[in-house]
Amino acid sequence: MAQYKAPLSDIRYLMNDVIDFPAHYAALPGAADVDRDTIDMMLGESARFAEDVLHPLYRSGDEEGCHFENGQVRLPKGYKAARDLFVANGWTRMAAEPRWGGQGLPGSLGMIANEMMGAVNPPWVMLVGLPMAVMMTIDAHGSEAQRETYFPGLVDGRYGATMCLTEPHCGTDLGIIKTKAEPQADGSYRVTGTKIFISFGEQDVTDNIIHLVLAKLPGAPEGTAGISLFVVPKRLLNADGSDGANNAVSCGSIEHKMGYMASPTCVMNFDGATGWLVGEENGGLKAMFTLMNNARIGSGVQALGLADASLQGAVAYANERLQMRSLSGAKNPDGPADPIIVHPGVRQMLMTQKAITEGCRALIHEGARLADLATRGATPEIRKQVNNALGFLTPVIKGFITEVGYEATNHGVQVMGGHGYMREHGMEQLVRDCRIATIYEGTTQVQALDLLGRKTLMAQGKPLAQYVEGLRAFCAANANNEAVKPFVAALSAKLDEWQDLTQKVIMKTMTGGFDEAGAASVDYLMYSGYVIVSYWWARMAAVSAAKLAAGEGDARFHRAKLHTATFWFERMLPRTLVHRENMLAGAASLMSLPAGDFRV
Amino acid sequence: MAQYKAPLSDIRYLMNDVIDFPAHYAALPGAADVDRDTIDMMLGESARFAEDVLHPLYRSGDEEGCHFENGQVRLPKGYKAARDLFVANGWTRMAAEPRWGGQGLPGSLGMIANEMMGAVNPPWVMLVGLPMAVMMTIDAHGSEAQRETYFPGLVDGRYGATMCLTEPHCGTDLGIIKTKAEPQADGSYRVTGTKIFISFGEQDVTDNIIHLVLAKLPGAPEGTAGISLFVVPKRLLNADGSDGANNAVSCGSIEHKMGYMASPTCVMNFDGATGWLVGEENGGLKAMFTLMNNARIGSGVQALGLADASLQGAVAYANERLQMRSLSGAKNPDGPADPIIVHPGVRQMLMTQKAITEGCRALIHEGARLADLATRGATPEIRKQVNNALGFLTPVIKGFITEVGYEATNHGVQVMGGHGYMREHGMEQLVRDCRIATIYEGTTQVQALDLLGRKTLMAQGKPLAQYVEGLRAFCAANANNEAVKPFVAALSAKLDEWQDLTQKVIMKTMTGGFDEAGAASVDYLMYSGYVIVSYWWARMAAVSAAKLAAGEGDARFHRAKLHTATFWFERMLPRTLVHRENMLAGAASLMSLPAGDFRV
Repeated sequence: MAQYKAPLSDIRYLMNDVIDFPAHYAALPGAADVDRDTIDMMLGESARFAEDVLHPLYRSGDEEGCHFENGQVRLPKGYKAARDLFVANGWTRMAAEPRWGGQGLPGSLGMIANEMMGAVNPPWVMLVGLPMAVMMTIDAHGSEAQRETYFPGLVDGRYGATMCLTEPHCGTDLGIIKTKAEPQADGSYRVTGTKIFISFGEQDVTDNIIHLVLAKLPGAPEGTAGISLFVVPKRLLNADGSDGANNAVSCGSIEHKMGYMASPTCVMNFDGATGWLVGEENGGLKAMFTLMNNARIGSGVQALGLADASLQGAVAYANERLQMRSLSGAKNPDGPADPIIVHPGVRQMLMTQKAITEGCRALIHEGARLADLATRGATPEIRKQVNNALGFLTPVIKGFITEVGYEATNHGVQVMGGHGYMREHGMEQLVRDCRIATIYEGTTQVQALDLLGRKTLMAQGKPLAQYVEGLRAFCAANANNEAVKPFVAALSAKLDEWQDLTQKVIMKTMTGGFDEAGAASVDYLMYSGYVIVSYWWARMAAVSAAKLAAGEGDARFHRAKLHTATFWFERMLPRTLVHRENMLAGAASLMSLPAGDFRV
Repeated sequence: MAQYKAPLSDIRYLMNDVIDFPAHYAALPGAADVDRDTIDMMLGESARFAEDVLHPLYRSGDEEGCHFENGQVRLPKGYKAARDLFVANGWTRMAAEPRWGGQGLPGSLGMIANEMMGAVNPPWVMLVGLPMAVMMTIDAHGSEAQRETYFPGLVDGRYGATMCLTEPHCGTDLGIIKTKAEPQADGSYRVTGTKIFISFGEQDVTDNIIHLVLAKLPGAPEGTAGISLFVVPKRLLNADGSDGANNAVSCGSIEHKMGYMASPTCVMNFDGATGWLVGEENGGLKAMFTLMNNARIGSGVQALGLADASLQGAVAYANERLQMRSLSGAKNPDGPADPIIVHPGVRQMLMTQKAITEGCRALIHEGARLADLATRGATPEIRKQVNNALGFLTPVIKGFITEVGYEATNHGVQVMGGHGYMREHGMEQLVRDCRIATIYEGTTQVQALDLLGRKTLMAQGKPLAQYVEGLRAFCAANANNEAVKPFVAALSAKLDEWQDLTQKVIMKTMTGGFDEAGAASVDYLMYSGYVIVSYWWARMAAVSAAKLAAGEGDARFHRAKLHTATFWFERMLPRTLVHRENMLAGAASLMSLPAGDFRV
């Protein structure tokens, strides 16, 4: 496929002109030295690593896939070397605290870098991302002794890591897991059970792998109130921290999948493996959510990256491929035909991809900023408040961005026609690799229930009210800004409608029961996503209009932003109309058909 | 995946209760003996063949794929045996005229059977479908001598066949093909050029393959007015009709694709191959359209079949998989959790699949009935009139059904969650195999231009007016039918809107130029599809309501129809709202961004 070029100009625009990350870092405890130059250097290095090291491995990793033999898993060629380089460059140390040998950089930088790396190799990003996620979880819930035991190897890149949640009979419903953990006299536990869908559960790039495993203690309460979290290393550690004897954990097989070929999806057998409790007994779900919320944002980042890669491939092709003449007269009269980018039907797909990608990127950057504050904010109050705000946005970032990101990758295939279906161009791989994003870390349907149920109904609508307040402030500040007046007016109207619809769904649920909420939830999620991204398009339009008026920056860039904002409001925001209708349609038409009568 | 059960009850319902195929056949020249028993037998045998012979080969064919070595192509195991059985059963003789040893059955029966076979093995259906399409094209445009030469081997299953249109530099734009045909003294032509994306261009199940090839004669006019059609057999025929010397045509390689693994997609090299003109000089495009229109309906049938297979897999899983409790209280209190079909979010996907599948099936059956009349109608006037009606519906059948069919296969994966992403369940294969349907035989964007440009604007809106007239007659007849009143009212309103929007788009195009039509076209296509399928849902609802009132038939079946009709009108028809907005949004927001500024 076309050479990937990291979207540095757009990222810099968001970080410097739209959201002002330099100011954010200046105010963030421990990040005062992250100035514009540091950001620029970081971005540049991430971009180079993505373009030069990871992109060349993407097709070959897909073709070669992972191999399983005698309990051993072999990753595709080059994956270990790329990881070794990543480690040698010090990237695994980036987010860790200095006392563990880390650089203590804010997590947002990693998240933004992950878009670029994920755009050209999402399975590889998962390989290096898991140890960081596990470290974060142990940091938040484990003991100081556990930090001392595991952090050195996680920080210096010696360890791989996994999260082991799913079992053959349950994925979403973790309350019914069967894996058991029996306490031993020495304070350890014997963990027994089978976990499936464990990414990088086994691999050949690190000698040791640190598994975080959900299991049930003897006599634990039923359901999610009775699950606990354990750390189970593949190899037990010697007193000096070196890798010791093999633990009783093994990979039984790997799955054959639609995509993500370079990521081994393992069946992991724990046969009385030695593990240690992380956090409190029966407090596993809470601990796992530290990891999970991060992973959910990561899924959004993944979909964003793949959407951008698809846009790049499609735009390059549409500018080169000559087919038919423009409906409004030849644009390339000396050639045999016009480039297909002249055709409105092709343009519609490209603009949709572009509007999705850049709009969602802004939302991701905002999520990254909030994630910094949620973990490092100056006071517990700030952290709590921001955590709530981020909790409200997380299901949208996960659910909405993965859905529209998947749509975008499909447009990329369609733009290329038959060539898009052929593997060599890499466009279909983006579809296959993006397809998992709407599923794992909680399906779109689970995100929808989280947003409407937990974050809205059960929170009496407060997170929404608070969030909308910020958006209304933007609208008020720009009410007389001629350059963005139509956008602000449309956004304002949608904010009214959003709150009104929320009330209506709450009322419907109060009178009709929770199935009413369930029946509205997916449309509520998508509706919310379109409104939220509309806010970002309005905000970007305001910034770019101001830049143009002041004669600052690249005029082509800013004019493109305004064109794309117009497209978004004319062609994308109207999608809310369907979601509104569906949200109000009620549960009856979904629930009335008897379960046994779908095929009669 | 779940065992496929052919949708016989739904097909019988459409054929007997909704559209009345027995009456249609009774009036169709040469089909008077196709009575209800014949139909039933045909359907039953197709169903068995699909379920027992083709379905077991589907996963294995995907895994094994096709192999290319030294110009030879090997199909997956079992594909030849299944085809041999198909031939032995006399299926290749089904549609051919009796004078060629055929049974002369109407094409609609084959089309309906193809849904079942295509649902469980679309690449295999292409293998056996191509010879029939080639036969139909030679029948319509070739000479009697060509019929005598090629029909025996096509009818008795000795020949494979292909259509060779696409070249490396052009697919949609056939006017710029480079393949040449030079006339020889003996009346034959030497054909030279490279064709790509040729399905079954080479294979190991027949000794000979009859290629239909588009090429240009020396001094031919530019563009599509200068392409001619040639028949080029892989092996030249001896005087006695047996296969003789190899022709100068060879397979250079096969493509690696996203799906359709059992179908070899070949690069075909014609190196001065001997061929014969089919039809008139420079009349190739017209001849190819006989084949193409049929193939376009076939793409719709393919997507329908895959959508149904996906629905079947998803419904079976949703009834078995236990996860979480119903939001309205446990439905399976003795089990560890409830089957996921209790969750509204899951229901929403299943109902969407069901409403798409059954609604589109009705449209396909109507297309099949019209196709019978277009080829066999009693008078030239009838054939011409029906041909126009079918020409209007064809881009909808191709464009709309492949789009919503692809959506349906994606829902099937989503219902299964992580398991849907794993190959063993077969759900992701349906997505990969359906992905090509919106691309080949003319992309959705090409269908959209055909519908709005050629079939509407250039025809002064007559086909639409005529079509709507039939729908209004249904509405009028059911205006006081209490059982379907809301459906009929909604449909009536949409018919008004459809015609009004058509006028608006025509006006916009007259004032703003053809880019305005292009910018509206894809949304116009999708809008039209939703309205047309709404008509079929209203019509099915009317039939089922009457059956219930009369106490006829399976009450569960008819109640399910009414539930699904309600779902369609409440949850699917509102999608027209977005398409309406987009249709009216105009070309500016698509076209204003300079082609070079998509990435600045």
